Amino acid sequence: MNIQLALDRLTIKEAILNANKVKKYVDWIEVGTSLIKEFGIKSVKEIRKAFPEKIILADVKTFDNAKYEFTMCFEAGADVATVMGTAPKVSIDICMEVARESGRKVMIDLLNTSDEKIKELSVYEDAIFCMHISKDLQEVIGEKQEVSKIKVPEPLTKIKDLKIAIAGGITSEFLENLKDIHPYVVIVGSAITKSNNPELEAKKIKELANRR
Amino acid sequence: MNIQLALDRLTIKEAILNANKVKKYVDWIEVGTSLIKEFGIKSVKEIRKAFPEKIILADVKTFDNAKYEFTMCFEAGADVATVMGTAPKVSIDICMEVARESGRKVMIDLLNTSDEKIKELSVYEDAIFCMHISKDLQEVIGEKQEVSKIKVPEPLTKIKDLKIAIAGGITSEFLENLKDIHPYVVIVGSAITKSNNPELEAKKIKELANRR
Repeated sequence: MNIQLALDRLTIKEAILNANKVKKYVDWIEVGTSLIKEFGIKSVKEIRKAFPEKIILADVKTFDNAKYEFTMCFEAGADVATVMGTAPKVSIDICMEVARESGRKVMIDLLNTSDEKIKELSVYEDAIFCMHISKDLQEVIGEKQEVSKIKVPEPLTKIKDLKIAIAGGITSEFLENLKDIHPYVVIVGSAITKSNNPELEAKKIKELANRR
Repeated sequence: MNIQLALDRLTIKEAILNANKVKKYVDWIEVGTSLIKEFGIKSVKEIRKAFPEKIILADVKTFDNAKYEFTMCFEAGADVATVMGTAPKVSIDICMEVARESGRKVMIDLLNTSDEKIKELSVYEDAIFCMHISKDLQEVIGEKQEVSKIKVPEPLTKIKDLKIAIAGGITSEFLENLKDIHPYVVIVGSAITKSNNPELEAKKIKELANRR
């Protein structure tokens, strides 16, 4: 299980400082959508440069103009980039193609996708599927990923070597209770970055992940 | 009818040069998603500064983190910002609220929204609804807005003073044939920016819009 550190609502400098504190406990580093929209693609370039040994994910949330956006992210050094599951099929096809050509990966964000759409998405066997409770759902509605409620959508279970990511209010407590599902990536943001002791929290999360 | 000039896949400098050539024929200037993701929010700030007399739209395509993104766009000087219609309701609610508080506007991008979702969206009476054929659908599948096929989704027709925007391969020919629908905004990109004579094309489009 990989731990992905999500960096959001920070300057690029703060993001690098935050990630530096906990880098030995995380495997992937996410350049959050807010960094990309606030500072542009240089956020990906600078974080790539600061952490040459990590997997870098650009949370670019592509919905259109897929070739341009994915090429831009991969040229900036991202190993993985995200596309919205609710985007038109043609755009997701392009993301998959650009990733395949560059030897990189696509993460499909399942936020607000219907069951019918998830069925369509199940053809993308090489993608990582992110079961995502968004910031706004967490902060306004109070939702978060709860172990007891997590269920891999049925159409995806047919994929051999299915790669699942889980995001949305993930804490060490969540990982402690996670048993039946074996995510490929667990995405942790504020539980680490807003902790009083980020290093300790990241260490705890990494230890729990290693037990799996 | 307002003409919105969409600026995409350009540097900020090129975008300003392009818009300067045709500014007397366009009413709104769109800072395209590609500019925001490539150069960050300074793309909105610089285009705002270059065109103080125009309505500036930030095509930020919000899907989450709505308060942060919309506040950022409005503080950078945008008059209108976009949210995806397929985003969770809570995020669209926040966009509407931030816009109302700042005296700005929300454009809801209907790309790939289901009929059921459009019904939900029909509560946002103050929004501008964008009927959108995306770049990827145009460039890969060959779709474009065709006058004969355009139909305002039924749930939206109940809105008093409905404001519709139309985007996706719009040309002067399209405007020449448009009769029954009265869009509030028509979004034109490459028909102007990639024309051999952008000024002439923009003038023609503006004249056709003025007839309506």
